[in-house]
Amino acid sequence: MFPRTKFTAFVATSIDGRIAKNPKELSSTWTSKEDWVFFQKSLPGFDAVVVGFNTYKVSENRLKKRNTIVFTSKVKKPKKVGSVTFLNVNNSDVFDFIKKMNYKKVAILGGPRVYDFFLKNKMLHELSVTIEPLVFGAGVPMFTGEKFTKYNFELQSAKRLNKKGTILLKYKYAS
Amino acid sequence: MFPRTKFTAFVATSIDGRIAKNPKELSSTWTSKEDWVFFQKSLPGFDAVVVGFNTYKVSENRLKKRNTIVFTSKVKKPKKVGSVTFLNVNNSDVFDFIKKMNYKKVAILGGPRVYDFFLKNKMLHELSVTIEPLVFGAGVPMFTGEKFTKYNFELQSAKRLNKKGTILLKYKYAS
Repeated sequence: MFPRTKFTAFVATSIDGRIAKNPKELSSTWTSKEDWVFFQKSLPGFDAVVVGFNTYKVSENRLKKRNTIVFTSKVKKPKKVGSVTFLNVNNSDVFDFIKKMNYKKVAILGGPRVYDFFLKNKMLHELSVTIEPLVFGAGVPMFTGEKFTKYNFELQSAKRLNKKGTILLKYKYAS
Repeated sequence: MFPRTKFTAFVATSIDGRIAKNPKELSSTWTSKEDWVFFQKSLPGFDAVVVGFNTYKVSENRLKKRNTIVFTSKVKKPKKVGSVTFLNVNNSDVFDFIKKMNYKKVAILGGPRVYDFFLKNKMLHELSVTIEPLVFGAGVPMFTGEKFTKYNFELQSAKRLNKKGTILLKYKYAS
């Protein structure tokens, strides 16, 4: 039996579900050191990561060293540069690509449209949410889906990461 | 010394920070029984509640029985109907009104513009957030502020309310 690839999204968010000021500033200067440590410890467990083009641009130096799939509308067919593959989901099947590459565990690192792509394809098997104790009141929401849909998850664990109360919630997809 | 009134916001949200499908449907048919029980147990500890007009319309029968302040642009000066006061924040000072009424503990029940009003006035002293284990991908965000601002909170407690993993986070305003 061929085991399915497991997809895990990592999200750092404010209390009010905002992940950035605007789509061009997806770097997380406001996240805690403790979240960064957790994230860096988690990544080696994954065969590949998926990011959108804006997220890629922000962390290009680090992502170049990994098996990275970058969602972009700028290519007609998958384009490989070192360990980085640029792929357009409108004309290429990313799940097919991941199967061919034999990736078993894939980390989804955002932004919101990338998270949403896996969510609406019901392939967001795990969701790791770090909530920093901040409210932004405006900004980029965690998911930017086209319509209101009820996706059920189940909380696997909750862990406080530091004194001010950064909290790490791990969910599993439930429907 | 005259003690300041304390304002506590109660919010029920999806994992992705959405509190409703659209602004006219602010009733929470998707929240857990356990959150409802927590909320009903909390309310008697407050002297008054503040809601927006849409939220009031959804729960009018219950709110009529309380000291309720309804934010609305439809009145020129505060209008009292039984225990309910309709007030326009553009031409009346709600903090002055609350002081005159001698309310010491006030619960803010939403929607997003009402939460934001207290946030931007730096009067959101406590924030009680119930996260249901759902992702909506779209819908009304928790706060609808005009600009991205960094408000610091501190986590006071985290409590799992049921098996599927509804979690209750209590924050205190920190800056």
